[in-house]
Amino acid sequence: MNDTTFAVLGTGGIGRRALEVSEDKDDLTPVAACDRHGVAVDHGGLDVDELLAATEGNIASDGGATVDDGGASSGVKQAGEERGVAASVQAEPTETPIDDVIAESGAIDAVLIALPNLEHDFIPRVAERFAAADYEGVLVDVLKRSRVIGMLDDREETLQGSGITFVCGAGATPGFLTGAAALAAQSFVEVHEVDIWWGVGLKSGYEDNRGTVREDIAHLDGYDIETARGMTDAEIEDLVDEHDGVLEFHDMEHADDVLLERAGVCDAEDVTVGGVLDLRNDQKPTTTTVTVTGETFDGEVATNTFELGDETSMEANVNGPALGYLKAAVRHNRAGDYGVFGPAELMPGF
Amino acid sequence: MNDTTFAVLGTGGIGRRALEVSEDKDDLTPVAACDRHGVAVDHGGLDVDELLAATEGNIASDGGATVDDGGASSGVKQAGEERGVAASVQAEPTETPIDDVIAESGAIDAVLIALPNLEHDFIPRVAERFAAADYEGVLVDVLKRSRVIGMLDDREETLQGSGITFVCGAGATPGFLTGAAALAAQSFVEVHEVDIWWGVGLKSGYEDNRGTVREDIAHLDGYDIETARGMTDAEIEDLVDEHDGVLEFHDMEHADDVLLERAGVCDAEDVTVGGVLDLRNDQKPTTTTVTVTGETFDGEVATNTFELGDETSMEANVNGPALGYLKAAVRHNRAGDYGVFGPAELMPGF
Repeated sequence: MNDTTFAVLGTGGIGRRALEVSEDKDDLTPVAACDRHGVAVDHGGLDVDELLAATEGNIASDGGATVDDGGASSGVKQAGEERGVAASVQAEPTETPIDDVIAESGAIDAVLIALPNLEHDFIPRVAERFAAADYEGVLVDVLKRSRVIGMLDDREETLQGSGITFVCGAGATPGFLTGAAALAAQSFVEVHEVDIWWGVGLKSGYEDNRGTVREDIAHLDGYDIETARGMTDAEIEDLVDEHDGVLEFHDMEHADDVLLERAGVCDAEDVTVGGVLDLRNDQKPTTTTVTVTGETFDGEVATNTFELGDETSMEANVNGPALGYLKAAVRHNRAGDYGVFGPAELMPGF
Repeated sequence: MNDTTFAVLGTGGIGRRALEVSEDKDDLTPVAACDRHGVAVDHGGLDVDELLAATEGNIASDGGATVDDGGASSGVKQAGEERGVAASVQAEPTETPIDDVIAESGAIDAVLIALPNLEHDFIPRVAERFAAADYEGVLVDVLKRSRVIGMLDDREETLQGSGITFVCGAGATPGFLTGAAALAAQSFVEVHEVDIWWGVGLKSGYEDNRGTVREDIAHLDGYDIETARGMTDAEIEDLVDEHDGVLEFHDMEHADDVLLERAGVCDAEDVTVGGVLDLRNDQKPTTTTVTVTGETFDGEVATNTFELGDETSMEANVNGPALGYLKAAVRHNRAGDYGVFGPAELMPGF
């Protein structure tokens, strides 16, 4: 593949680590990054080390990811005189960070939308803004909630008209593990069940993983996105303490289900997602495993299994796949293949 | 995806089973099939049941797959008055089966070349013939040998000029397991080692799996394709007896290595392929496993693992992926993305 330029919207945990991982990829050049207060653009390639150093404490209560709501900034640590990206010598303060990136998007092959835990229609609306500017390129998000996919589908014609190849749900799960399930399904002519079970260990705790933890809490029984958003940091710390730092999730609303259904692998209801989050140990509390059970053309029922090594961090399993899907999408986009794709649709067909 | 029409060249084990598996796929319509003596074409869709019944004993010493060498046919069982495909009421006898399919290819989206164990340049030459006829569509093969990939690359410009999207090595290994390795690599920024270890149980023995067994023997120490081709059926039976029906293979020349290298996953030399073939039990002698060891962006070394359920037959693991890659390739082809692809290149980028 030729060299690919990309931008990151949001410089919380995911955005920052995507920039970091891209330094290990010869063919990926980060050229723009923004958060709610600043934007850095260098079409020759950002100085990632400088940007990361300047934004080191950039883990807001919302994942450091909110860029345009002008809301509470209590969780944003400051570095230098400016907060967040604006602290970088490469950046300018701005009130309109996304518009500023869109203004440069003619020279940007792909945009990673690293904005978790916002309103359901936030990412679809961001996509619309790129389409309104006739952006021709790739948009990738790492959303988790099933219901967002339909909102993107509703906008497919707009995205196609602009020349956008949108990959939704391209993190760890959905994303990496969705793709693994789609691949594992290749042995079968009928898939009975897909079970995704993840383990994440974050010894760094809530303090350094605010966005992720808050979004996961919204999946606990008795909570939803609204209640999780409304919790104070102290309330979240209390909740974590009550569970001795270990939160277990079952039947999560994760878009793996609809993403596998739209790829024709199985019905959404045959997909279950759950996992265990340990906020007091870096070691994973359980091994991340995808099992796919199905029937072969010759009538056997079997289970294929994909396991991630326990030493692979959540960050490694989000950002590698996000950039991997981004690269696959750029290939599609350059060939003129536009629209909304799930990770499983970038795999062999089922 | 819209409905896809496809043809099968060769109606040995792989070709016949691909037709069988396609019956479970709503969006795949087989419209042509040929072997060395006959060709069946029905653009409205072949009657697969009739064709399979007519060619039931079609397991030649060379896999029933040779279609144009006019060579020995001692291994071809006969069904009806004609041998092979020609025994089907849907077929005509022919001396030029591949040319006959090419003549119909304007209405064929994809062609599965199910011709194992032939001269190294046979499949590349078949591809050239399709290109010479200005075929615009997909060609998929299930070749195993690393050296064939280069021969296809040498012809890439010709294939692109015609509008061909060629997927090489799209069976079980290379193919399914290559894709699994490419996906498993997504956790890492550097892959140290890919190990592919397969188990196949074929209680039906040599008699019903001539092409596969003969090709595998060519991978044993002291054998190569020429010596394996030169063996009589009795010599092969003797060799199998000497090993009590269980053949173990190490450091096989399987194209997984070059296919992963061309996808940028790792160096070819970091890939090892081996396995165990049991010709006296249907149960697998060992679990088919892909392990990918690498280093994450945050400096951890870990191993991701993909395991196939022991109840999944070799046939299921060849034909599902072959048709899966075929469908992925049709999507690329329709978007105008032509050239030579390995399975790993149809996965998320690395």
